[in-house]
Amino acid sequence: MMNVIEEFSPIRWCEGALRLLDQRVLPAEENWLSYTTPSEVADAIAQMVVRGAPAIGITAAYGMVLSVQQAVAQGVWMEALQADRECLAASRPTAVNLFWALDRMMGLLAGLNPQQDDVVACALREAQQIHEEDVRANRQMGAYGAERIAQQLEGGESCGLLTHCNTGALATGGYGTALGVLRSAYAQGWVARIYADETRPWLQGARLTAWELLRSGLPVTLNADAAAATLMAQGKVRWVVVGADRIAANGDVANKIGTYSLAVLARHHGVRFMVAAPLSTFDLDVSSGQDIPIETRGAEELLRWGGQPVAPERCDTYNPVFDVTPAALIDCIVTERGVIDCPSLEQVQAHFRQV
Amino acid sequence: MMNVIEEFSPIRWCEGALRLLDQRVLPAEENWLSYTTPSEVADAIAQMVVRGAPAIGITAAYGMVLSVQQAVAQGVWMEALQADRECLAASRPTAVNLFWALDRMMGLLAGLNPQQDDVVACALREAQQIHEEDVRANRQMGAYGAERIAQQLEGGESCGLLTHCNTGALATGGYGTALGVLRSAYAQGWVARIYADETRPWLQGARLTAWELLRSGLPVTLNADAAAATLMAQGKVRWVVVGADRIAANGDVANKIGTYSLAVLARHHGVRFMVAAPLSTFDLDVSSGQDIPIETRGAEELLRWGGQPVAPERCDTYNPVFDVTPAALIDCIVTERGVIDCPSLEQVQAHFRQV
Repeated sequence: MMNVIEEFSPIRWCEGALRLLDQRVLPAEENWLSYTTPSEVADAIAQMVVRGAPAIGITAAYGMVLSVQQAVAQGVWMEALQADRECLAASRPTAVNLFWALDRMMGLLAGLNPQQDDVVACALREAQQIHEEDVRANRQMGAYGAERIAQQLEGGESCGLLTHCNTGALATGGYGTALGVLRSAYAQGWVARIYADETRPWLQGARLTAWELLRSGLPVTLNADAAAATLMAQGKVRWVVVGADRIAANGDVANKIGTYSLAVLARHHGVRFMVAAPLSTFDLDVSSGQDIPIETRGAEELLRWGGQPVAPERCDTYNPVFDVTPAALIDCIVTERGVIDCPSLEQVQAHFRQV
Repeated sequence: MMNVIEEFSPIRWCEGALRLLDQRVLPAEENWLSYTTPSEVADAIAQMVVRGAPAIGITAAYGMVLSVQQAVAQGVWMEALQADRECLAASRPTAVNLFWALDRMMGLLAGLNPQQDDVVACALREAQQIHEEDVRANRQMGAYGAERIAQQLEGGESCGLLTHCNTGALATGGYGTALGVLRSAYAQGWVARIYADETRPWLQGARLTAWELLRSGLPVTLNADAAAATLMAQGKVRWVVVGADRIAANGDVANKIGTYSLAVLARHHGVRFMVAAPLSTFDLDVSSGQDIPIETRGAEELLRWGGQPVAPERCDTYNPVFDVTPAALIDCIVTERGVIDCPSLEQVQAHFRQV
C-alpha cells in the first residue's frame, strides 16, 4: 500500500516580505503574518509564531534577507547586518540550527560587496537554499528512518508509533524530521497508528501535530503526556520517534520537555527510541548534553490558559521547555546522511566523517 | 521547626442538604453547591464537582442520607434505597471507596426499620462517622508516612518531594492522603519543597493541589507532568508521594493517569515511591491491577480548554484517566494502620491481619 501525503511549509517568502503561519493560534485559526524587518522576525521567533529547531533556522535566514534589504535601503552594511544577526541570535537559546543558519548567512554576506553585488538576490538565494536543503534532508531522513522501522516488522505488518511535540512541516521547511519519518513509514504502509503526546505546556502535539497529521490524512490519536507509559505497557507502540533541538558531540539530545521521560519509559518497556534531526542540529563544540543551555519559559504557560487561570496566580513554577536525553537511552539518531546506531562520541564522529 | 497547618473539608452537611465545594471552577472561584437528592449527588460525582477516591466515598455516604430523607418523606423504603445506591454506584467506576461507603451505609440501613427508628439521624450519624474516620485515618497515615520520609534524612535535613493529582483535603474528608503525608512531614520541618505535577487533562495538580498547598502555607512549585523526569535527574526530589483510587490484593495500585509513569521514572532515578491510601481503598477481591476497571473519559478533556479548541475538533483521542502501577515499583504503601514495605500479596495480607 502506498499512501499519498500532502505537504506544505509554514514559512513563505512573498514580494520582499517574510510570511509566517501563526502557530500560536492553530488549530482555531490559520493566520499568516507578514514581516519586513529582522527585529520583527526576532520577536516572532521569541513569541513562538514559528517554532521547531529547523523552522527557526530557516526563519532566521530569511530574517537576514530582510536585514540586507534594510541595509541596502539605508546605505549601511556589515555593522548593521552584525547587529541584526545578534538580535536574531538572541531570540531563542536552545535550538542550534538558529546559530548555524545565521553563521551560514553571515559567511556568505561577508564575501559580498553591496556596491558591486546584487546582495538582496544573493541573500535570498542562500536563504531559499537553506529552506530547500531542509526539505530535501527531511525526505532523506524520512526514507532512512522508515527503513529502520520496517526492519523490526514482519512482512505486511504495521505498528503503532508515539511522537512528542511537533516535528512536522510546521517545525521545519516542510515534510518534517520525526514526522517526516512517520510520513515516510506511513506512505509505505508500515504505520497502523500515530499516538501524539499533547505536549504541555504549549500543546504543540494537540494544536500542531494532530492538526498537521489530520490535514495529511494520517491516522493520529491524541493522548495526555502522562498516558504514554500506559500506551507502552499495553504494547500499543513499537517506537518513540522524536526530533531534536540540539545534539551534543556524544549523541546526547536536547529536545522538548518530556522527551527524556519517554526515553526512560521506552527503555523500561522494550520500546525503541529514534531521534530524527538534520546534521545542522548537531553542535560538535558541545561535548555532552550537560553543556547545552536549556530554556526556561515564563510561569504564564502553566498558570493560565486562554487568559483563564488554571492555577493560583502567585504559584511558584518550574517550566523548563527542553530536557536532555542521554545517548545511552537512544537506539538511533537518523540524519539526512543515514543512521547512527547506539549513538556515542565515536559513532557521531564516524557519521560526520562519512562522505 | 513545627509548622502549623490549616485544614478544611470540601464536603459539608448543612440543614438537611449536602454542600460540595465545586472543584471544577477552582482556583478561579470558590463556589459551594447544595444538593438535596441522591441522583443530584450521583450527577455531581460523575461531573467531578467532587473527586478523589475518599471524597467520592464520603459524598456517596451523604448521598444515601438524602436517599433516606426522600424515602421517609415518600413513605417508601428498601427498594428505593437500593435504586439510589445503584444510581450512586454508577457515577464513577474506578474508586473502590465509593462501593465501600455505599455498602457500609446499606449494611446499616438494612438493619433499621423506618417505622421504629429515626432512620435519618442514624444514616447521618453513619455518614458523619465515615467522614470523621477518614480525617482520622489521614492524620494517622500522615504520621506514618512522614516518619518513613524522616528515616531517609540526616538530622536537620529537609528534602524535595513530588506529588501527582490532588490527594489533599479536597480529595478526602479533610487533611488528605498523600498530601496528608506531605503536610505531616512539613509540620516536622522535613520538607524543603513540594513539586506538584499539573496533572493533565483535568489539571488537579494546578487547580487544586497548588491552591490547597498555598492556602495552607506550604512551599509548592508547579510543573508540567513531562518535567518530572528532569526534576528527578537533577536530584530535586527524594520521594514521589501519591494516593490511590483502588489497590489490588497483590499491592498493584490504580491511580490518576501518570502515576505509573512516575513509578518507572522514580525507579530509574533511585527516587523512592510511596502510596498513601486508607484501608477502604483496598479491594481484596481483585487479585491484581489488571482486573481493576479503568475509566476512560471523553475526548472533550483533551480537545478543548475553557470552551476554546486546543486540538482539531474531530481528532481521535485516548483518554484513560487512571493507570496501574505494579506493586514491584512501589517502595511502600502507607495506611492508617502503618506501612506496607515492598508490597505483595503476602505483605498486604499480613497488614490486614494486624490488629
